[in-house]
Amino acid sequence: MTETELLARLKEAAADTERALEGALSPVHTGDTVIGEAMRYATLGGGKRIRAFLVLTCAELCGGTREAALPFACAIECVHAYSLIHDDLPCMDNDPLRRGKPSCHVAFGEAEALLAGDALLTYAFEAAASNPFVSPESAAAAVNVLASEAGPRGMVRGQAIDMKSEMKNLDELADMYAGKTAALLRASCLLGLFAAPGKPDPAIREKLEEYAYHIGLAFQIRDDILDVTSDTETLGKAVGSDEKNDKKTVFAFMELEEADARVRSHTETACRAVADIPGSGILAALALWLAERKK
Amino acid sequence: MTETELLARLKEAAADTERALEGALSPVHTGDTVIGEAMRYATLGGGKRIRAFLVLTCAELCGGTREAALPFACAIECVHAYSLIHDDLPCMDNDPLRRGKPSCHVAFGEAEALLAGDALLTYAFEAAASNPFVSPESAAAAVNVLASEAGPRGMVRGQAIDMKSEMKNLDELADMYAGKTAALLRASCLLGLFAAPGKPDPAIREKLEEYAYHIGLAFQIRDDILDVTSDTETLGKAVGSDEKNDKKTVFAFMELEEADARVRSHTETACRAVADIPGSGILAALALWLAERKK
Repeated sequence: MTETELLARLKEAAADTERALEGALSPVHTGDTVIGEAMRYATLGGGKRIRAFLVLTCAELCGGTREAALPFACAIECVHAYSLIHDDLPCMDNDPLRRGKPSCHVAFGEAEALLAGDALLTYAFEAAASNPFVSPESAAAAVNVLASEAGPRGMVRGQAIDMKSEMKNLDELADMYAGKTAALLRASCLLGLFAAPGKPDPAIREKLEEYAYHIGLAFQIRDDILDVTSDTETLGKAVGSDEKNDKKTVFAFMELEEADARVRSHTETACRAVADIPGSGILAALALWLAERKK
Repeated sequence: MTETELLARLKEAAADTERALEGALSPVHTGDTVIGEAMRYATLGGGKRIRAFLVLTCAELCGGTREAALPFACAIECVHAYSLIHDDLPCMDNDPLRRGKPSCHVAFGEAEALLAGDALLTYAFEAAASNPFVSPESAAAAVNVLASEAGPRGMVRGQAIDMKSEMKNLDELADMYAGKTAALLRASCLLGLFAAPGKPDPAIREKLEEYAYHIGLAFQIRDDILDVTSDTETLGKAVGSDEKNDKKTVFAFMELEEADARVRSHTETACRAVADIPGSGILAALALWLAERKK
């Protein structure tokens, strides 16, 4: 698949996801308080929707429909949005900006942002569990995977490792990246698999998990590289912020050249993992595009 | 059922729940970081476990086993513990004490407490979705109810109403109490119903929902009363704290005598709602005990 084709697919999936999220996050579901507004503010109208794209793409690769995958795509995007709200809070990264607009706590207040994050996380499981297009088995499996990848052995574990003052070696850094980024990407691929009819094939599951792990690591290392090689205009945010904020990055353990090589090797491993799934060219194209992205 | 019998049942259910929570929150499930420790600190070894008791009791009333109900009881106690951790945070109630020991953020740090709350909420859905003793239909229904009662139309809605600067009338106060307390009690009763085999009876469901709503309101009004009539020694926490913290209570709208009458009338309505469910004497005994509690 060419990059032009991939970009068209990404755009279409993002638009479908946006429409579905607008319905999912309407006041009927998010209630009549200011928290619903804060949930919509933090979730709608932004982001590349990579996670939703993975849900929809993996569902379609496994014989599922977009209709059945969209509730799961909404669920993962709600979990992602919650994690960004809580990450930006004063007691975490204390970041006043997100995607070029005031962070949720700046726009709504700290207590409101805390609750909006809590509400998005909670609502994600309601959206997943009540997906009307899948069997109860698949809905329960989806909740299970979403919770285990987002929870204390998954994404939260990555954040906990990040808060430790020292990072002993590259393995520990990879462990942090696996939690912070790869875990939700893995959940995305598996939610796609569970949105497809029938019993999930364990072999396909394993391939998708390996793919997600490696694109997650490549993505994070690429992030580290862009922070030192890009410029603020291209990146849309301040460069050099990792060093300024004393963030742990690959550059504690290697030079630029080796980091570049690692992005390439994780990307190749990801592509190889799914190569024999029919139609997986789109996953390979995504992996390459993420590895070469300029922002 | 006599109060002595009820207290024995409460004690037994609390012990069973504690054992189940120790297993559920072991590092196998909560990971190897400090967040797992914070999750255990905030959840284990305390509380009356009223919510777990309701899950176990309603399951048994509906023909279910304690074994099948315990994973759901753990899930609701994790959600309750998360709500207390986040409520105590500096940007919320800024409360340094919980059940006579330092609050989670005092003991572990604010970022760690935020993440421990997030992790408990997330893990609750994993525990519910992976309950091995119920059908996938029941597991998905349990997740659905737990999320909708804890989320932006349930508990979070109650907290959002609480944050509003003014409380116009008694209906709005009741609305807040319905969200802050009754929502999780309703989830508890329904999780019990879903832990029982077979398709849940809609009539039973409705009765349990009405029961939960009214014991929830009675509980909160009783809380308001104890804050002005009890003493610090009996209550185990500072009295008069509602007025000091400018908390909204029933006393904005009525005197003590009317508040007492309302506790009684909500309790009677709760008992009447479940009176024709065979064996529901235990639910009535609980309602009466909660209404007359001294702390």
